[in-house]
Amino acid sequence: MYKVPVGVLGASGYAGRELCGLIAQHPGLQLAFASANEQRGQRVRIGSSEVTYVAADDAPLSKAEVVFTALPHGAAATWVGNARATGARVVDLSSDFRPGAATGASAFTTPYGLTELMRATIPGAEIVANPGCYPTAVLIAIAPLITEGWIVPGATINVSAASGVTGAGYSPRPDLLFAEVAEDFRAYSVGNEHRHLAEMRAVIAKLGGDNDILFTPHLLPVARGILATITVPVKEYVENPAALWRDSYDGEPFIEIADQPPSLKDVVRRNVVRLSVAKAANMRQPTLIIIAAIDNLVKGAAGQALQNANVLLGLEEQTGLPA
Amino acid sequence: MYKVPVGVLGASGYAGRELCGLIAQHPGLQLAFASANEQRGQRVRIGSSEVTYVAADDAPLSKAEVVFTALPHGAAATWVGNARATGARVVDLSSDFRPGAATGASAFTTPYGLTELMRATIPGAEIVANPGCYPTAVLIAIAPLITEGWIVPGATINVSAASGVTGAGYSPRPDLLFAEVAEDFRAYSVGNEHRHLAEMRAVIAKLGGDNDILFTPHLLPVARGILATITVPVKEYVENPAALWRDSYDGEPFIEIADQPPSLKDVVRRNVVRLSVAKAANMRQPTLIIIAAIDNLVKGAAGQALQNANVLLGLEEQTGLPA
Amino acid sequence: MYKVPVGVLGASGYAGRELCGLIAQHPGLQLAFASANEQRGQRVRIGSSEVTYVAADDAPLSKAEVVFTALPHGAAATWVGNARATGARVVDLSSDFRPGAATGASAFTTPYGLTELMRATIPGAEIVANPGCYPTAVLIAIAPLITEGWIVPGATINVSAASGVTGAGYSPRPDLLFAEVAEDFRAYSVGNEHRHLAEMRAVIAKLGGDNDILFTPHLLPVARGILATITVPVKEYVENPAALWRDSYDGEPFIEIADQPPSLKDVVRRNVVRLSVAKAANMRQPTLIIIAAIDNLVKGAAGQALQNANVLLGLEEQTGLPA
Amino acid sequence: MYKVPVGVLGASGYAGRELCGLIAQHPGLQLAFASANEQRGQRVRIGSSEVTYVAADDAPLSKAEVVFTALPHGAAATWVGNARATGARVVDLSSDFRPGAATGASAFTTPYGLTELMRATIPGAEIVANPGCYPTAVLIAIAPLITEGWIVPGATINVSAASGVTGAGYSPRPDLLFAEVAEDFRAYSVGNEHRHLAEMRAVIAKLGGDNDILFTPHLLPVARGILATITVPVKEYVENPAALWRDSYDGEPFIEIADQPPSLKDVVRRNVVRLSVAKAANMRQPTLIIIAAIDNLVKGAAGQALQNANVLLGLEEQTGLPA
Repeated sequence: MYKVPVGVLGASGYAGRELCGLIAQHPGLQLAFASANEQRGQRVRIGSSEVTYVAADDAPLSKAEVVFTALPHGAAATWVGNARATGARVVDLSSDFRPGAATGASAFTTPYGLTELMRATIPGAEIVANPGCYPTAVLIAIAPLITEGWIVPGATINVSAASGVTGAGYSPRPDLLFAEVAEDFRAYSVGNEHRHLAEMRAVIAKLGGDNDILFTPHLLPVARGILATITVPVKEYVENPAALWRDSYDGEPFIEIADQPPSLKDVVRRNVVRLSVAKAANMRQPTLIIIAAIDNLVKGAAGQALQNANVLLGLEEQTGLPA
Repeated sequence: MYKVPVGVLGASGYAGRELCGLIAQHPGLQLAFASANEQRGQRVRIGSSEVTYVAADDAPLSKAEVVFTALPHGAAATWVGNARATGARVVDLSSDFRPGAATGASAFTTPYGLTELMRATIPGAEIVANPGCYPTAVLIAIAPLITEGWIVPGATINVSAASGVTGAGYSPRPDLLFAEVAEDFRAYSVGNEHRHLAEMRAVIAKLGGDNDILFTPHLLPVARGILATITVPVKEYVENPAALWRDSYDGEPFIEIADQPPSLKDVVRRNVVRLSVAKAANMRQPTLIIIAAIDNLVKGAAGQALQNANVLLGLEEQTGLPA
Repeated sequence: MYKVPVGVLGASGYAGRELCGLIAQHPGLQLAFASANEQRGQRVRIGSSEVTYVAADDAPLSKAEVVFTALPHGAAATWVGNARATGARVVDLSSDFRPGAATGASAFTTPYGLTELMRATIPGAEIVANPGCYPTAVLIAIAPLITEGWIVPGATINVSAASGVTGAGYSPRPDLLFAEVAEDFRAYSVGNEHRHLAEMRAVIAKLGGDNDILFTPHLLPVARGILATITVPVKEYVENPAALWRDSYDGEPFIEIADQPPSLKDVVRRNVVRLSVAKAANMRQPTLIIIAAIDNLVKGAAGQALQNANVLLGLEEQTGLPA
Repeated sequence: MYKVPVGVLGASGYAGRELCGLIAQHPGLQLAFASANEQRGQRVRIGSSEVTYVAADDAPLSKAEVVFTALPHGAAATWVGNARATGARVVDLSSDFRPGAATGASAFTTPYGLTELMRATIPGAEIVANPGCYPTAVLIAIAPLITEGWIVPGATINVSAASGVTGAGYSPRPDLLFAEVAEDFRAYSVGNEHRHLAEMRAVIAKLGGDNDILFTPHLLPVARGILATITVPVKEYVENPAALWRDSYDGEPFIEIADQPPSLKDVVRRNVVRLSVAKAANMRQPTLIIIAAIDNLVKGAAGQALQNANVLLGLEEQTGLPA
């Protein structure tokens, strides 16, 4: 099988390394380069493969048909431009081109790679804005409710979510040291202050929703995984609400509607969103509780980036992805 | 100082052991007995003290002025009766005598030992129903909102809470094994099905509240601690909402109003509820977010039991308690 | 590709589940049955595949060309016999047929599946005794020293090893609960009392060694992985001692000689032994320190069992194994 | 009770914070200052007390009767001098004044504060070199063997030890991030390269030992605690070897001889060394296995520093220390 050459800029962070590991197992891709400025020249083992880092300036951008940019938010835009200048198509894992982003292009001028919801916009894209980890879990969970008009108009979608520490990146911050995180649990960006909110609001609006979202993220003492607990006031209870999601995502290989609430163990190292739906008992206001779980580094970052690359390149969407 | 003899029935579980450890450090109490049927005859070290377990049937109930019952829910009622028959006063850590409980006495006929809210009912009590761990965190957090009438009438109080595994008791269940819990995070009793809901609803009503509560607990890969993330629609925003809590709990030694969201590390091994208050940005419906943290074994169980015993016995309420 | 039908008896424990997951990804094998008496009838997801458990009595033994027995020590012998009666070949993951075992056949009458050391005995075997997890790490690490005669005659081989909790099995024991294991570390079977010692001694003797072994295992607060720290007094120091291992294991796909001491992260979910060799500085008695790491569930159990099955069936030895 | 003013230089690291917390609970000491250059001006809660950091240059050294220096190795010597210049006595937690140290005074010219072994040298000291964490556990464990002449002359004392990550200090190093340490275990300074070796060798020699020591430390995924597994070839087995330790440490409040191997949970937050002794079975060379556990931040650092301060100041040695 011909292997499409691809490159990774920013390959020493958690998402970048995950991407290199997945590319190594992808039957249709080969890694042309992996950049990491501080570790340039180092040879590292990632999963069962090995990678030698180059400086970004030395990366042979022209050799790659697709370049993945896994650079810090704000730093990606320049390198996306550099890669585009060589004719490569780009999947950008930063927030720079996402809807609602402070920098970069405005809402949805760059195709937004939440593949299951926006698959049609991707094949012709020059740049795909790969979604944030929290938005991936939350938006897949609530999209059917919005498009089917189940939510009480104007009501607040309430999201309490928790992420493993790789979501904070491979940053030597004192508050991310083992002895600080272990045996602890804390909320952050409390008060609806998280930068993923603009991205979620933009997509909710694009899907036709007219609801506020209240989002409180937490830091979990685990390495990887996101669990989002979402409560949504609905107009009425139906017998079997999960059927809405089963219908909406019928045939989607990476979305699982579970009978029991998913846990992180169900999804780590897999490119899936797994979710459950329950009716809240003893409530005057009918309210659904959706629990959605993803691996923040796979479906929340590197796996979804490869899923988008598969679509970009006209490959079978599931190719090389761990479901 | 004269030391009041007290006993612990059910002293081998997590709450019972915590209680024995705290009693050992309490200057006004001495441990007359500690029962644990399966480990009877065993001498164990708890913190810096040692305890020899007796069978409950062999416990010299009549020697204790106060008996703490830390027995499984449903099993406590009988032993509470046995202890009462000897004239001892009882602090019961099970749910059997709590408001809303399925078994035992009906709502509030037994004084409910959420000390800061119901201090006046405790001194004369023969039995004190020690609150559940989740209700302690949640009710202390929301009580001022209810009594001051800030909440939108009829609105839902939304609670997403997470507890360390000692909250599930010292039970050799496969799902509580290290290899199952580590690196995982999951919701349980999803759909407003947790047995603590009745207790919370009863207290909300008693405080004059007219609101539903939607409660989703989660299991954390930590040994101890509860963090509750509570969102409450309010009639309007005030400049500094935390002042409500500072005023309500002015002078309370075991309640801390923090500027930053508390984390488990702030409260473990301490008999406190620590909470923060924030306004949700970008919301049509003004909504407050209260984050409350406790140690489920201390303020959520053994510490609060001792706090109630101090009140029962006419001791200074803070005596022997780690704040 | 024709897929050889295989079965797993004891498929709900950690090793049995790992085996089902690996079989699902093996291109040359198909799972004919998976037994688990207590969970019979249950359908569970293991990795990316699903399995429905049957009772062992209902397992269609005759349909399998190879049966893997992952049953408790002592219980395996009977079922090995049952499987043999149908003509199936058996890879037994218990200790029952291992050299030095208290039960079962005597030393080495059953081929011992430490593949790299005893490959020649496996192809014709009716039963393969799959090695214990600790012996796999330790024996691969010390075998070259023994066969090349480097060790001081009569000297003690000193092993301090640590294992993740899955090594203790999926047993609901109170001492394996999360709250007991997390933040703890302890030695067990102290005093050379571990049941794997007989197995290690038998192999040392078979390889021609004349040395005592002193083995102290520890329990780690991690799910999986074994790290063995082995110190061996040697006759003299050579310039580059690691060359001995590189030569001895030249061409072995599942043995890695590393420049830096391996850690658990280097080996989890991989069917490898990774080891490093260092000379102890400032010692009158030249002493080598070998650090060996494996995944106790893969190279230490299920992976090695599949490696042996590949040899038994005449398949390429690496087929389907994560290296 | 009069409270002796003491100061802490380097109060934001793990040992410094532990020290501040212990001083707050010490009935005979009061904290005159706590320095932390980067956090100067910040008010932090440590345990149940609060501390406002000052820059070291602004620390009122002359107000303290005892100054604790918990500064990085190499940086302590200057500040020890500054504190001495004001007349304060100093307990230095760095390695700068320890025997065998590369910098600072030569062996034992500064009293070495392994209190139980060298108590007599401390009362008149101007500076006490507080021992390293590993040496504390190891030396307390082997001292009786050396002084009683039980060890085979010239034999190697073999130590495999594991420490929680606070032993590496509060340093934002990538390899100490939660996602790197969790679920991992690794050896470091392999090959007898650890800087604590010189300290251990110096004390062994001072006690009259003529033995090499082979020391391999490991990094544990826990916050605090050290477990050392020590094997020592002895001349012969006696009936009850633990009696040697019980006799040697008779009356020592901070040394516990246990029947069962200690684990980290037995010692965390306590100023003790807890150890067990076992005979190795099936060995031609009689060998004892000593397992010793300490809390690296308490008996391995801050607790022992206070123990030494108690001796320096003529206070009861146990005052304010958690046993």
